[in-house]
Amino acid sequence: MGSGMTMIPKSPDRSAVEQEQFLKILSREEALARFEAALFPRAIPSEQRKLADALGTALAEDITAPIDVPPFDRSNVDGFAVRSADLSAAGEGASVRLALNGETIHCGTVPKLQVAAGTVTPIATGGPVPRGADAVVMVEHTQPADPDAIDVRRAASPGQFVSYAGSDIARGEALLRAGTIIGSREIGMLAACGIAEVKVARRPRVAVVSTGDELVQPGEALAPAAIYDTNGAIVAAAIDENGGEAIFLGAIPDDEAKLEAAMRHALADADMLVLSGGTSKGAGDLSHRIIGRLGQPGIIAHGVALKPGKPLCLAVCDGKPVVILPGFPTSAMFTFHDMIVPALRRMAGLPPRSDAKVSATVPVRIASELGRTEFVMVSLVAGKDGPIAYPSGKGSGAITSFAQADGFLRIDALADQMPAGTEAEVTLFTPHVRVPDLVIVGSHCTGLDLVTAPLAHAGLTVRSIAVGSLGGLAAAKRGECDLAPIHLFDDKSETYNTPYLAEGLELVPGWRRMQGIVYRRGDKRFEGLGAKQAVAAALADPACIMVSRNQGAGTRILIDRLLEGARPDGYWNQPRSHNAVAAAVAQHRADWGMTIAPVAHAVGLGFIPLAEEHYDFALVTARRQRPAVQAFLDALGSEEARAALERAGFRPA
Amino acid sequence: MGSGMTMIPKSPDRSAVEQEQFLKILSREEALARFEAALFPRAIPSEQRKLADALGTALAEDITAPIDVPPFDRSNVDGFAVRSADLSAAGEGASVRLALNGETIHCGTVPKLQVAAGTVTPIATGGPVPRGADAVVMVEHTQPADPDAIDVRRAASPGQFVSYAGSDIARGEALLRAGTIIGSREIGMLAACGIAEVKVARRPRVAVVSTGDELVQPGEALAPAAIYDTNGAIVAAAIDENGGEAIFLGAIPDDEAKLEAAMRHALADADMLVLSGGTSKGAGDLSHRIIGRLGQPGIIAHGVALKPGKPLCLAVCDGKPVVILPGFPTSAMFTFHDMIVPALRRMAGLPPRSDAKVSATVPVRIASELGRTEFVMVSLVAGKDGPIAYPSGKGSGAITSFAQADGFLRIDALADQMPAGTEAEVTLFTPHVRVPDLVIVGSHCTGLDLVTAPLAHAGLTVRSIAVGSLGGLAAAKRGECDLAPIHLFDDKSETYNTPYLAEGLELVPGWRRMQGIVYRRGDKRFEGLGAKQAVAAALADPACIMVSRNQGAGTRILIDRLLEGARPDGYWNQPRSHNAVAAAVAQHRADWGMTIAPVAHAVGLGFIPLAEEHYDFALVTARRQRPAVQAFLDALGSEEARAALERAGFRPA
Repeated sequence: MGSGMTMIPKSPDRSAVEQEQFLKILSREEALARFEAALFPRAIPSEQRKLADALGTALAEDITAPIDVPPFDRSNVDGFAVRSADLSAAGEGASVRLALNGETIHCGTVPKLQVAAGTVTPIATGGPVPRGADAVVMVEHTQPADPDAIDVRRAASPGQFVSYAGSDIARGEALLRAGTIIGSREIGMLAACGIAEVKVARRPRVAVVSTGDELVQPGEALAPAAIYDTNGAIVAAAIDENGGEAIFLGAIPDDEAKLEAAMRHALADADMLVLSGGTSKGAGDLSHRIIGRLGQPGIIAHGVALKPGKPLCLAVCDGKPVVILPGFPTSAMFTFHDMIVPALRRMAGLPPRSDAKVSATVPVRIASELGRTEFVMVSLVAGKDGPIAYPSGKGSGAITSFAQADGFLRIDALADQMPAGTEAEVTLFTPHVRVPDLVIVGSHCTGLDLVTAPLAHAGLTVRSIAVGSLGGLAAAKRGECDLAPIHLFDDKSETYNTPYLAEGLELVPGWRRMQGIVYRRGDKRFEGLGAKQAVAAALADPACIMVSRNQGAGTRILIDRLLEGARPDGYWNQPRSHNAVAAAVAQHRADWGMTIAPVAHAVGLGFIPLAEEHYDFALVTARRQRPAVQAFLDALGSEEARAALERAGFRPA
Repeated sequence: MGSGMTMIPKSPDRSAVEQEQFLKILSREEALARFEAALFPRAIPSEQRKLADALGTALAEDITAPIDVPPFDRSNVDGFAVRSADLSAAGEGASVRLALNGETIHCGTVPKLQVAAGTVTPIATGGPVPRGADAVVMVEHTQPADPDAIDVRRAASPGQFVSYAGSDIARGEALLRAGTIIGSREIGMLAACGIAEVKVARRPRVAVVSTGDELVQPGEALAPAAIYDTNGAIVAAAIDENGGEAIFLGAIPDDEAKLEAAMRHALADADMLVLSGGTSKGAGDLSHRIIGRLGQPGIIAHGVALKPGKPLCLAVCDGKPVVILPGFPTSAMFTFHDMIVPALRRMAGLPPRSDAKVSATVPVRIASELGRTEFVMVSLVAGKDGPIAYPSGKGSGAITSFAQADGFLRIDALADQMPAGTEAEVTLFTPHVRVPDLVIVGSHCTGLDLVTAPLAHAGLTVRSIAVGSLGGLAAAKRGECDLAPIHLFDDKSETYNTPYLAEGLELVPGWRRMQGIVYRRGDKRFEGLGAKQAVAAALADPACIMVSRNQGAGTRILIDRLLEGARPDGYWNQPRSHNAVAAAVAQHRADWGMTIAPVAHAVGLGFIPLAEEHYDFALVTARRQRPAVQAFLDALGSEEARAALERAGFRPA
């Protein structure tokens, strides 16, 4: 995104040349290899840090233990320092009397007296064992005798309850190697040796610039046709997560002079520059033209045989990496993690990220483009024979494709699909995936969030995968979910949902959603009319445009009935959700459509009620007794849920 | 540690009472349950944070999507917004000509014109689809016709290349739940909705106090009998790693008034107080006496049937948790993670830590104390049939027992041992353990660190487990390591190492370490003498004390030969390492002993050379071809390694 392009090429020739230049795409591996070769080897800048400020940084040097730990032979118990030979005859029935030396060794006390034959010295846990002693007996195994002696009831082996000097850490041993990430455990080892400062790799400063006239920063008001800048914030956070220090410079409009000034300013100050946006094929693609002027060798790869992420541009300008990420959020994040993070971590002195992988079954066929390595974001749920990996259906333009996925699987460049049932290797985004307590696959409704809220607050994880009613039913039949929310109208029986239940599934009534016709308040064509009159009015006005719904949607059946075969303007505009219908009408893309009452009211549209849709649940009977299912059923039946549903405009069944 | 105790009880009765009080120990589960019951439920304080400052914090509220994402029906490609019905007849051989509308929709452009039948509007990726259009065709599938028209060569399905409003995130859906940790992916979702600030749980402020007269802070000079404060730094870091904000107040001496003042000051300012030290059974155990005066209900558990960690003290004072950790570093860290982190994370609004577990075989018998749940720190190496878990032999007094372990296994309170060969469940400290590239099990030598340094710097992980020569040989025979470093003297053949090799093992020569007698420089008894003369001089002086070595050490054989049956004072002081011998002599615990030249020189002792010890490697022949083994052999034979060994005082073989 973010191209201030002129779409109509003035010369077909120039267009062909530009197209070709863009199509010189490299394989993912070739692009990575060239990028790394242009960046490494390089010196990793370092800095001194106090131990308390070093958490999470990477050591820049090997550390050799400067002292023995413990630094002296230390008592491990409260007791008496003894000569073990004096106790060779001691036992339960035969205690040995030993004379007390005239000092007590506390922690921090330097012993002054020698433990001579027949004597003991009181010693605390952590005290230094005095000269002459070779073992410690516990106070529990002794008895005070006269004021100057004790009786010992057990023999002692040489070295008993003594930690010898250097037995924990030996002076001169390699304590930690360069590249080690300093966690609390490393801090403990360094502190034990008395090391208060360490040389650590300096975090690379990474400038982040978003490009595009349409971008608005979060917190600001969203103008029509504008979108919030997602990539700026997520890329900056991902840089911080991978050892860099992000400097977010905001969104720069598509103005060549302004953008070049911003890029030069950023590069002067930072070790790396990451841009997002500006990689479309349109002529307004400014960023990569500017890179050619910023330093040598310039662009390394522009276009990578990778999906998502084909428009990725990798450059090195006078030793500093410059990257243009694709504009689509999931493309941007996936390529950032796959292609940029390895270099960033290396610049930060960090070891490669070690990704956890699991094997999972793919329940549906996934189509793939020949010639590009394709990475498919997936959500994992527990199946009968191990994990099931659901591909995200939202595509690379959706941030949630990436943000809500558990990981991704790879389809080879030479394959045009991954068949249903394939056992695929899934690379996880987080080290371990918590298996959700409750899995809901089907049609989503904001009312569902109200019902599951108490489960989430009680610590149960609820995973809801939106694949539509039919997709949910199929998943329920395969046993991949606990519940499938459905709202399927059966034309013959004129009933909802029940006719669609297969064996092993049972109906749990949910709530009713009033469907009706929406229009912009004040639109004289519809004010005050009933549903049938409103449709008639719309059909009578050639300037009036409708918005329909996708084939298969229950609402579509209602629409078609009302239209009685008419196909007015906008009939082929067929979004897949109630929200999209409301947005189209609110934004003048259309003048009327059919959606549900809560959605219409949220956007402030006029609403003419028509018929209730039944939003129910197909419950997998075999999973009814699971605690999370019981918790869901309890929540669904609760007064709190009914009240919340009603407040939101739904009618509990 | 840290007890300013007086060891000799004036009255046996009082001692018995105190003993009994301490012995009222709770089971781990009972102690945890009482602690949690006294702390929860409680309100989690929250604060507003800007998105950029919220990374790693926990959401304090549910977030509902305030807008649709995308906010409008968006084009996914550069191309033309069309009415799909217009292209029903289009195909490769039959292009359809459509008239261009007089505007181009860039990103951020609000469309002004309607796409009427027979017309198209140029549109960029990310642009809002104009009224009337229901699909987008890619520029690649079109051809400019006359200046005001294009030819389209493909049909378009309704909705093609359109992302409908709300298809990524629907207004009103539950975006994120309270308790979610905000990572880059969550920041992306919040930014996409335009959310710039979130309410997050405030990190609990946790005051950390070390207690003990013997403690010195890292960076300061170490006085005799003093040790560095390890627990202060490691506990503070572990608090930061688990959602808290540590405030380290330093080490307080064992002075009741000073300690009480420090504890009151800390509690006034913080949400929680963690002390380490001061939990010995000695009468100087001040901290828990003070707790009784700090608030209600006071001490919840003092003494837990847990090993390591029995002296743990849990208290709640006027709603704030107060904890006294055991003084031994591994006891302190293990109990902190096992008993305190769950409460800390809950106070920080974080979900429970999810620990990864693996199944591993225990190669040796582990003794355990009846009546206490025992946790054994282990290091993992790859065995023939899965991971092998080596117990740390260093005990809870060693920081490295915890810091260098991969995880721990649990021995039930009712078991007195875990037999060799047991398949045990190991809870990992980090989500995934990287299998080391090279595993070395046997006797450790600082020379080995010099040889393996280039491997570590090349990114190979080297794990060295110090179990002594015989332990190493046993591991090599079981195939649990690549190399076993050994220095075993065969009395009969008067040769080193070779006689000990079993089938499947081969000798790789290492280096020679000169053994000799050490004494403090300036000690007139030894200056200028040869080894035999020195021993004779020592035996002639009844005030002269020696330090010996453990049974089984090659050096011990040499010592015994020199002594010719004599058993002078100190003979039963038998540490297990060359470093401990040098420390004992340097610190006047003994006057002479036998160690190796580099260790003697590091401590500045006088050294009388006697005989070379052969430090070689038993190589598992079947593993010789592994790349890491080859890298080790290359490093061992390199000029760099020989030079480094010589500089350190070793003689390469």
